[in-house]
Formats: sequence, C-alpha cells, structure tokens
Amino acid sequence: MATYDPTNIFAKILAGEMPSHAILETDETLAIMDVMPQADGHALILPRAPSRNLLDADPAVFAPLMRDAQKVARAAMQAFGADGVVIQQFNEAPAGQTVFHLHVHVIPRIEGVGLRAHGGSMADPDVLAKHAQLYREALAAMG
Amino acid sequence: MATYDPTNIFAKILAGEMPSHAILETDETLAIMDVMPQADGHALILPRAPSRNLLDADPAVFAPLMRDAQKVARAAMQAFGADGVVIQQFNEAPAGQTVFHLHVHVIPRIEGVGLRAHGGSMADPDVLAKHAQLYREALAAMG
Repeated sequence: MATYDPTNIFAKILAGEMPSHAILETDETLAIMDVMPQADGHALILPRAPSRNLLDADPAVFAPLMRDAQKVARAAMQAFGADGVVIQQFNEAPAGQTVFHLHVHVIPRIEGVGLRAHGGSMADPDVLAKHAQLYREALAAMG
Repeated sequence: MATYDPTNIFAKILAGEMPSHAILETDETLAIMDVMPQADGHALILPRAPSRNLLDADPAVFAPLMRDAQKVARAAMQAFGADGVVIQQFNEAPAGQTVFHLHVHVIPRIEGVGLRAHGGSMADPDVLAKHAQLYREALAAMG
C-alpha cells in the first residue's frame, strides 16, 4: 500500500492552510462539512494524526474518532431532522477513497430521500456555512 | 428512538443461541461473516455490549470495535486479495439498518467488481464457512 502523502487536502485543512466549514474541534479530531455532500448535513470526522486510512491507522485514534462520529450523528438527527444516519469509511481508491487521510463520513438520511453520488458536485459555500452552524448549535445544546 | 430489543438475531448469536461463521472472538467483540454478503469476505463486527446502533452506544465499545474492524480489514486485503475495503455502519431503518444491534460492516472491494445489494440473497453456508476459515488463517498469520 502507498504511504501517507502529507500534501493531501485534509492535511492542509488540519494545518490551517486551507479553509473548511468546521463543526467540532478537539485535540484529537476535526469535524467538517463535506464540500460534495451526498445529503444535507454530510459531515466528515478527521483524526489529526496522519494516516492514509483505517488500514495504516494507529488504533489510538479510534476512540476519539468514533466518539465524535457519535456526537455528530446525534446532532444530525436534531439539526437536520434525520430519520437515520449512515457511517461510511473508504479504504483505497477501488473502495471509493478520494482523499488519502483517514476520515469517517456521517450522512443524515431522510425517509424516502435518496443520496446524491459520492464525489458529486460542490455545494454552495453559503449553504455549507449555514449547515455547519446548525451542527454547532445542536452540539452546544447537547452539551 | 426505539429502545434495544434483546431478541434481535445478533443478540442471539452473541448468546450462542444461533449459529454464525465466526472469524474473531474477543472479550468485547465478535466478528462473523454476513450471511447476505455484498462481496466475498463481507464481515460484521459486533460489540458484545447491547446497543441498538451508534446513536445509543456506550463510547467504551468504540476502541475494541474499530480495533477489530481494522484487523478484519487488514485480513481481508490478504485473504480475499482485496484492492480496498469499505467500512459501513447503518443507524435506523431509513439509513439501511436491518438488525438492531450495533454492527460494523467490513466489505472487501476488488477493482472493477461491483457490490451486490445490501440485504440481498443468502450465501451458501459452505462458502461462508470457507471464507471464515480464510479470515481465521489470515488473522493467525498476522499475529
């Protein structure tokens, strides 16, 4: 398997060299809006520690990564009136991975509403900013 | 959200009241073959602790759950010659959840080979037994 490339876009976001719509920041993780959302509220949880994907990850990242995926999933149920949430994580290009820094997708699902394609079109930045705000408010209300 | 129903099929498997094709057993988890595999080697990681899904889970399960998802994903790359691995976890029926005990899907992907439908047809038990054996051998070789 290829090694970690520190010039990937999520590494740049984590380093503050690229902008993102942040919804939750901890010492171990950053949660942001996916800029090509498959549904309204499609978020990503990134560990700060570098790894290409799950296959080469330090297991120490799993507890904070999933703790925050759970928080964001719970917030999605509130903030986006979701009926369910899909968690996805892709390892290597043949499995759908497009950015090679470990990340977990949190995708709110509404009964009867299909998903848009993975890696489809870019969302309106104003909409993403508003959705990030909805998440931050829901997370703050959950304490 | 509905509460945990202890009569679900994974609870019965964990209690030893239903058979499964086990590939990895720990104090906190059980990994088994999915009987309706979307690809050869489609496995499930179940925490032993009862929760309906990620939304109501005790965060204490996340570290062992993902530790074993990582082990099984790595084993899948070896045992099934996978080019990648998809990790999925569904919360509530509108998101695709069909058994209401938290579980993580580990799905090997082969370049150019599509996935079968989620919750499709039952696999041949002899094939599942053979695939479980391939996993156990790969896990043993990984130490």
